[in-house]
Amino acid sequence: MSSLPHSKAPDTYTDMRNFKWSQAEKAIARKAFEHALQQELEEVIQETKRLAAKIEQPLDVWKLEGFLTKRRNEIDRKYDYRYSVLPEVFAELVREGRISEEELHGLTQEKLGYVRKLAKL
Amino acid sequence: MSSLPHSKAPDTYTDMRNFKWSQAEKAIARKAFEHALQQELEEVIQETKRLAAKIEQPLDVWKLEGFLTKRRNEIDRKYDYRYSVLPEVFAELVREGRISEEELHGLTQEKLGYVRKLAKL
Repeated sequence: MSSLPHSKAPDTYTDMRNFKWSQAEKAIARKAFEHALQQELEEVIQETKRLAAKIEQPLDVWKLEGFLTKRRNEIDRKYDYRYSVLPEVFAELVREGRISEEELHGLTQEKLGYVRKLAKL
Repeated sequence: MSSLPHSKAPDTYTDMRNFKWSQAEKAIARKAFEHALQQELEEVIQETKRLAAKIEQPLDVWKLEGFLTKRRNEIDRKYDYRYSVLPEVFAELVREGRISEEELHGLTQEKLGYVRKLAKL
C-alpha cells in the first residue's frame, strides 16, 4: 500500500458515503471486486474438494458442512457492491491481500486515501 | 415384511409408548438401529465425495452445502433412540429398506406388529 496517497483522506464515514463514482471508476471498481470474489470462490472450491477427499468418518462430513456455511456467510457479508460502502470493502480486501493497489489505480485520490486509511485499521 | 406377524398390533400410540423392553430386545434394537445409521452416514460420505469431485463452479459448492444441511437434519430427526418412539423409528427404516425384518427378530410380537402396521402407512 506504500504507493497509495496519504493526502485527502476524509475524516468521516459520511464523506465516503457521498463519494461520486465516474463511469471509469465504476468499471475499475467492478473489475477489482469481481476478480477478488472469483479468486475467493475458487479457494472455497479447492478447499471443499480437498476436505471432501479426506473424509473418513461422519464427523468429517459435518465439519465440511460447517466450513461451507461459515465461508458462505463470510463471503456474503464481505462482498457488498454498494458504492456507499465500497471503500470499506476494498480496504478489507487490500488488508487481506485479495486486491492489489495496482487494481485500484484510476480511482480518485480521495477514495484511495480512504481505502488506505481503513486498510490500516 | 411378509413374515412379520399381523396379530396383536396395538391400536393406539399410547400402547407403543408403554412397551416394556427386555435387555435382549434392547440389544437387538440397538444393533439394528446402529447398523441403519452407519449405513446412512456412509451413504452421505460417499455422496459428498461424489458431489465435491464434480464441483466446477461456486453454485455447485452451495448446492453441496444445502445437501449436507438437509441430510443432517433428516438424520437427526429420524434416528431417535427413545424406546417410547422406537417402533415408529423402525417402521420408517423398514419402509425405506434400511432395516430388514430379520434384524428385528427377537422383539415381541406386539412390537413387531406395531412396526409392521406403521411401516405400511
